[in-house]
Order: sequence, then structure tokens, then C-alpha cells
Amino acid sequence: VRGTLASGVRAVPRPVSAAELVARLPTEMRVLLEGDATTRVEAVAPLVAAGPGTLSLVADHKRIDAARDIRAAVLIVPDGAGAWAAAARLVHPRPRLLLAHVLASLFPASAAQAEVSSQAVVAADAVVDGGRVDAFAVVGPGSRIGAGTHVMSGAVIGCDVRIGAHCVIHPQAVLYDRVVLGDRCIVHSGAVLGADGFGFERDGDRWVKIPQVGSVLVGDDVEIGASTTIDRGALGDTLVGCGVKIDDQVHIGHNCSIGARTMIAGCVGIAGSVTVGEDCLIGGAAMINGHISICDRAVISGGTLVAASISTPGQYTGVFPATDHRTWMRIAGQLRRSGRR
Amino acid sequence: VRGTLASGVRAVPRPVSAAELVARLPTEMRVLLEGDATTRVEAVAPLVAAGPGTLSLVADHKRIDAARDIRAAVLIVPDGAGAWAAAARLVHPRPRLLLAHVLASLFPASAAQAEVSSQAVVAADAVVDGGRVDAFAVVGPGSRIGAGTHVMSGAVIGCDVRIGAHCVIHPQAVLYDRVVLGDRCIVHSGAVLGADGFGFERDGDRWVKIPQVGSVLVGDDVEIGASTTIDRGALGDTLVGCGVKIDDQVHIGHNCSIGARTMIAGCVGIAGSVTVGEDCLIGGAAMINGHISICDRAVISGGTLVAASISTPGQYTGVFPATDHRTWMRIAGQLRRSGRR
Amino acid sequence: VRGTLASGVRAVPRPVSAAELVARLPTEMRVLLEGDATTRVEAVAPLVAAGPGTLSLVADHKRIDAARDIRAAVLIVPDGAGAWAAAARLVHPRPRLLLAHVLASLFPASAAQAEVSSQAVVAADAVVDGGRVDAFAVVGPGSRIGAGTHVMSGAVIGCDVRIGAHCVIHPQAVLYDRVVLGDRCIVHSGAVLGADGFGFERDGDRWVKIPQVGSVLVGDDVEIGASTTIDRGALGDTLVGCGVKIDDQVHIGHNCSIGARTMIAGCVGIAGSVTVGEDCLIGGAAMINGHISICDRAVISGGTLVAASISTPGQYTGVFPATDHRTWMRIAGQLRRSGRR
Repeated sequence: VRGTLASGVRAVPRPVSAAELVARLPTEMRVLLEGDATTRVEAVAPLVAAGPGTLSLVADHKRIDAARDIRAAVLIVPDGAGAWAAAARLVHPRPRLLLAHVLASLFPASAAQAEVSSQAVVAADAVVDGGRVDAFAVVGPGSRIGAGTHVMSGAVIGCDVRIGAHCVIHPQAVLYDRVVLGDRCIVHSGAVLGADGFGFERDGDRWVKIPQVGSVLVGDDVEIGASTTIDRGALGDTLVGCGVKIDDQVHIGHNCSIGARTMIAGCVGIAGSVTVGEDCLIGGAAMINGHISICDRAVISGGTLVAASISTPGQYTGVFPATDHRTWMRIAGQLRRSGRR
Repeated sequence: VRGTLASGVRAVPRPVSAAELVARLPTEMRVLLEGDATTRVEAVAPLVAAGPGTLSLVADHKRIDAARDIRAAVLIVPDGAGAWAAAARLVHPRPRLLLAHVLASLFPASAAQAEVSSQAVVAADAVVDGGRVDAFAVVGPGSRIGAGTHVMSGAVIGCDVRIGAHCVIHPQAVLYDRVVLGDRCIVHSGAVLGADGFGFERDGDRWVKIPQVGSVLVGDDVEIGASTTIDRGALGDTLVGCGVKIDDQVHIGHNCSIGARTMIAGCVGIAGSVTVGEDCLIGGAAMINGHISICDRAVISGGTLVAASISTPGQYTGVFPATDHRTWMRIAGQLRRSGRR
Repeated sequence: VRGTLASGVRAVPRPVSAAELVARLPTEMRVLLEGDATTRVEAVAPLVAAGPGTLSLVADHKRIDAARDIRAAVLIVPDGAGAWAAAARLVHPRPRLLLAHVLASLFPASAAQAEVSSQAVVAADAVVDGGRVDAFAVVGPGSRIGAGTHVMSGAVIGCDVRIGAHCVIHPQAVLYDRVVLGDRCIVHSGAVLGADGFGFERDGDRWVKIPQVGSVLVGDDVEIGASTTIDRGALGDTLVGCGVKIDDQVHIGHNCSIGARTMIAGCVGIAGSVTVGEDCLIGGAAMINGHISICDRAVISGGTLVAASISTPGQYTGVFPATDHRTWMRIAGQLRRSGRR
């Protein structure tokens, strides 16, 4: 693969000069343009694949020396990168943030054309208010899809669902009945919102299901990754605050509340009835036990199990990183012996 | 979200009085009704959102004092809760179990109307025996769907599959060829039953696939969560016993056998050829190595790796819970040094 | 389930004699046939279910004694298994490898008949070059499907996707725009290739999305398990080398590169910008932190977190296996105290 496929260069739909590009950015970003302002950007590429005609990123000062020889047309570089021979430079104290704006400008999202496919099923009393529904998608009775929202092929929207404006629901995503989604949300393929929470009570030799009659309420500007699951509440709702970003393969149990702008990396599992504060960072594959609270601005390291409530902002960790197998076996042996004493 | 969306109150389809509600419950539950039996239940809500007209739950004695001021219409309370001023009370030694029955009564599941959508594809020789198949669902050749079973939009049922009576197969669930499901099962969206087990043998510089010619056999009263995967056996079948409850994002490898009534919480991974006994509880994100056996009534703590067989009932643990990052770094440093000795 | 459903015997589509079976295998395998060469194979079964007419596997020498009484028709046995009373034997130094070939011969994959379902949506300018597309599948504009490739029901192929020859895309799999897949790949249900990588930059009180303009490039002979997610690159592509095998519920972040023939077991999470070498083995539920490199032929134990780059082949471990809960509490208590010192 490496040799033949990985060119990594992506052409822009419409080439622009460095000067035009800067002119399109928000003026409050105060981007400094150095070098030849007429240099044209025809494609983007990571540094390893950057060549003539491409725009690329020097993410931080550590990469500057290695990047000096890159034959890119335009480079995004951090403040204080010093003199540069070849490429035109867009200089900014936060190169990744500038990249976000530059890419959004070079690859504008095409507005979803308001249209319901003749091969979609939209219930007679559902309202698709200037949105788009593709083939094999379903919008159930009583549901309401906001303006500019795009329900892609095969997505299934249950009954009495409300989806705000300018959302994208990718193929195969499922929103169960009564789920509510704010504006400008992105739900990736395979995500499931509103499946039943895991609630059973033992009665003799069987488990009795507790009907999960709550729902899932998601705020504005939330992104939900592929194959992520957010269960509906038992009594009451599961809540996801505005600006929350959730990666792939995350599980959020019933009756959780996730505070605004919290980031949840891939493969995280959050058990039921957990309250997570605002502006938290939860590292990949972290696990959070049920019925606990995590305060605002907590940082949970990847792979860490949180077993008890956290009330002080800061970083929390509990996982031993891999070492060579023999060393680990010695460590584990000593731990085991210490438990026998 | 919290202020505007999270009302958490859900109206019941048909309001009832407390007395009517009790009359509908199984008499062997012996529910005691205290207070005004004519109080009407118009909605349900968690305690934090309970108000006039709502029924809510006081799950245990710890919450009684906090709940005394709640202006709910009807409360489910534990035995011995003592005098109460405002609400009517349904008194029971196991409030959550009573809640399960009360919710089932207030929100009766609508029976799936026997009907095959004109936009579904059902093979000519498939039998849909009084079941319901929604738009864009597929039922392959030779498959058989039991009475009252509901195959929802976009679910794909392969060839020669057998599904019992009164099951619900949620949108986008997939049952590969020859999978067998008992009666009264629930399969949530994105669950995949019967994908190939992970079986390869190395031959020189390539992996040779071992065809996975077994299947997945699931008993009665099993619930399978969203995005859960249960792989088919290589030779022989993967078995899931009656009454097993599986949460979201669980993976069960090929040729496993899960004993009756075992509960598996979210994000658990069970490698291939594992035998799990009956009435086990497997905590969230636990991992179980391949080719081992776990006896009946074992309890595996969340986040724990089970590396060897377990032959004695009881609880098993192996995960260090999160602590503040600095303390953990000291612990990890000491562990590392102990491995060098 | 165990008693009634778990027969575990699967009939072969066309019975054959042991001699015929051997004749069909690659001659370079040099299989030795012992016993009655006319014995007919009518079914296959694991040892526990093997009976008259069945072929089964004695995987290694440890199982020979237990297998001597099995009333199977034909057994695959390891070299040096010695005399045997009943069954005909196919003798080979690597019984599992022989089983792979025998099963492939007994259950030949039916070639996908070139046909596009009238209930599929294939864009006017998409090319389905002798492939098959089933009902409710979608192939977007500009995409190209190779000869003999089967896009099953409900799979969604975006725009400008390239899929090689003789692939199988199972129901509900999703390939986002511009994903590239080589020849002879298998993508199981619920897998999502090319969803946006998890890239955001903080700007004041909000997260700004970094458009993910790269793609996912997958080589030949790759198998991707159910509900596995492989995110597209931000700048540049996510790469999966030839012969890589990925189990269910795996997550591979943006801009990763996975070397040829590496095996990744279920529930593994690999964060962004990770380079994994060739011929690595990554155990189930292992987690790999972002922006690190793992050399060729590294073995990562199941459940292990890899926090730093690995440059020497060998096995790496970092997870304490479950022990009884009390012992573990003593160990955890001592660890906690050691951190306080």
C-alpha cells in the first residue's frame, strides 16, 4: 500500500492564490502572509507528501527544521519560524487552528439540496422542513427534520424525533423514537441514539426488563462518531450538552449527562447515571463506572477506569503502560505475592 | 441542554388512578397502596423532575428523606418508608422491580401488526408467520420469522435464519445466514449476529482464512444491545443461553458459550472458545481471554482482564482505579523499578 | 440452548469420500491419508459433536487421547498421532492449516453472480464492472466496483470510491467518499470506513472542526470485522496494508498506517497518527496511544495500553490479570499506599 496508494495529495476543487486564501479567512485571525502572495494552491498534503502546488502544515516548532526543504507551494507555519527559502507561508500562533479554517475554505461543504428521494420513506405527518432525505432512509411518524439537514442513505429516524437545522445524519445511523438533536450536529454511520438502557431487575430465576421510557436529548454543535451508542434514559433522559464531541465506538449508558464542550475519545465506555461536567477530556478507552459524578475540567487519561466521583479538576490516571513481557511478568509476580501477605 | 430540554417528564398514553394501576399488577406482587387511591397518574418522571400528576421512584431508603418534599402524585417507595404527607404511595420491598411492572403497564408495547411492507424484500420461500417486516428490511431465502416478530426498517436477515415469536429486530441489525434466535428476543440497532469468527492460519507469508462454517444459536428471552457483535463458530456454533442480557458494544468471539441468565455489561470483549457459566455478571469493559472457562455465578469486575479459567463462584478483579495523575506516576515508577530488580 | 440447539453439525452441500477430498487439496500440502479412503464425509462438526458421517479436527497432540474414541468418519490429525481404530485420518503437521483448506473445499464460496438489483441505487456514472449489488445497497457517483465483487443488501458506498475485484461488502457496511479498497477484501456488517477522524482545535469557548480531507486506503486481501471503524485522514490518508486481518469492534484513528499482514484482535483501539509495522500481533482490547510507532513483528498482549513507541520486536504487556476480589483489594491498597510515600 505504502508505495502505490499513499500519495496523500488531495486536489482542491478550485485552485486559489495564497493572497485569495488569506482574504477569505476571518479578519480577526490576523494571519500574516510571507513570501510570494500569488503562489497558487492546487492541492493539500501532509508534509511527507507535500510537493509543488500543495499547501501543507508545519504544526509546531519541532518540525520546522525538517520542513525547510519541503517543496510545498504554501506552508502554514507557527509564529517565529524565521526566514524561509521556498514556500509562501501563512504565519499564525496556532497553526492547527489556522489549518481548520483554511481547509474549511478550500473544501466548502456543499449545502444539502432540499429534496426527499422518491426511494425514501417519510411518514405522511413527518415534517422535512427544507432538509434532504436520501434513498432508503426512513423518517417516522411525527418526526421533524430542520432546514438544511441531510439524512443520508439508509439512516433510520424513528417516531416523534426532532432534528434541528444543518445537521448531517450519515448512512446507517439510527435515531430511536423521541430522540432530540440540536442544530449543526453530525452523526456518523453506525451510531445509535436512543436504544434501550441496560436495566433489568432479578425476579426469581429471570430478569425483568425495566421499560426505558426516557429519551436522549442532544444539544447544538455535537459530533457523534461512527458506531457510537447513546442509550435512552429509564425514567428521565440521557443528556449530551452543546458542543460535545464524541469519537467512534463510544458507549454512553442510560441517564448520563455529559456537560457542554466535553471531548470523549474513541472506545470510551460510560456506565449508567454518570454526570460528566463541562470541558472535560476523556482519553481513549477510558471506562467510567455508573452512578458517579465527574466535575468540570477533569482530564481522564486513556485506558483509565474511573471508579469513584471526582470533585477536583485535574488529570486522573490508573493504567500501567506496556513494558517488555518479562519485566511485566516480574512486576505482576511481585504484585501477586504482595496480595498474599 | 439542561435548562431547556431536560424536562424528563414523559406523559403516559392513558392516565389512570393509583387504584387502577395497582389492580392491573400481578396480584402475587402484593403491592400496598397508601394515601389517596383516586390520585391520577398522567406522566412519569425521575425524582428530580417529578411534579403534580407524575409517578416517580424512591429507589431505596437512602433517598427517602430527600424525597419527602417531592410534589409527585404517586411514588413507588420501599417497605418501611414511614408516614408521608403528600403523594400516594405504592409500597413494595423491591421498588425497582415494582417500577418495571408499573412502566410495563403504563406503556404497553404495541403488538406488531402482521404486515410485510411493499418496500421490504422477502424471499419467495421465506416464511413470515404472522410477523411484521418494515420498509427496506430484507428476509433471505429459506428464513422463517415467528408470529408477532417485528423486523424493523433496514434490518437484514440472511438465508436460512430462524427467528422465534414475539421478537423485535431493530433497524440496521444484521443476522447472517443460518443464525437461530429463540422467542421474545430483542436485538438492537447495529447488532451483528453471525459474522465470521477471527480464524486464520499462517502459511509462509500470508494468512489463510479458516472458513467459519458454524453459526450462532441464541435462546429465548435474550436481549442484545446496540452495536454488539456475536461471531459465528468455526466448526460448531456460538451459543447464547436463555435469558442472557447483553448490553451495547459487546463482542463475543466464535465458539463461545454463554450460560443462561448471564448479564454482560457494555463494551465487554470475550475472545474465542470461552465458556461462561450461568448467572454470571460481567462488568463493563471487562475482557476475557480465549479458550478458558468461567464457572456459574462468577462476578467479573468492570475493566478487568480474565486471563485464566475460574472455577469458584465469587468476584474477580484486576484493575487499579484512577487516582490523581501525580500519585499514579509515583506508583507506576515504583512498579517499574520493582521489575528491574 | 445447550441440549436442544447445539448440535453443531453442519452438513456439506455435496458429500465426498476421503480420497476425493485429498485429491482436491493442493498437492504441495502432501496430506497423508490413513484408514479407509472410501469413507464418506457428509458433514463437519467439532470433536464434541462429531459422529458417523462427520469430519472433525484433532488440533494438537494434547487432544489425541481424548479423541481416540470419537466416532467421526474422518479426522484431521497431527503428524505422529499413531495408530487409530475407527476413523479415516488426514495427517498433516499443521492440522488447523489443513482444516482451512478442507473447509474451503467442502464449502466452496459461490461466485457472486454479476447483477445489479432493481432495488439498489447505483449512480449513473458509477461502474459496476461485473460485480453484484443487492437490494437497498447504494453505489455513489464516480465509484467503481471490481469484477466479482459483491455489495450486499443495505451496504452504502459513497462517491468516488474504488473497490477491487472479488471483494465482499456485507450488509450495512459503509464506505465514505473516496475510500479505496484492494482486491479480495472482506468487509463485515456494520464496519465503517472513512468516517471523519477526531480532529478539533479549541478556539475560545468552542471546538473548531478540522475538516478531514484525507481518505482510507486499504490494500489487497484485507478482512475487516463487524462494527470496526477506520477513520479517514485529516491531511493525507489512513493506510491499511495488504493481508492485514482486523477483528470486530476495532477502532483505527485518522492517519494511522498498519503494516502488511498485521493481525488486530477484537475491541482494539488505535488512536490517531500511529504507525504499526508489518507482521505485528495486537491482542484483544489493547489500546495504542496516538502519534507513536510500533516496529515490525511486535506482539502486544491483550488488554495492554501502549503509551510509547516500540522499536524492538518482541512481546509487550502491561495488564494485571483478574484475581479474587479480596486479594486484589489488598494489592490495590498497597499500591495506593506506595503512591502516598
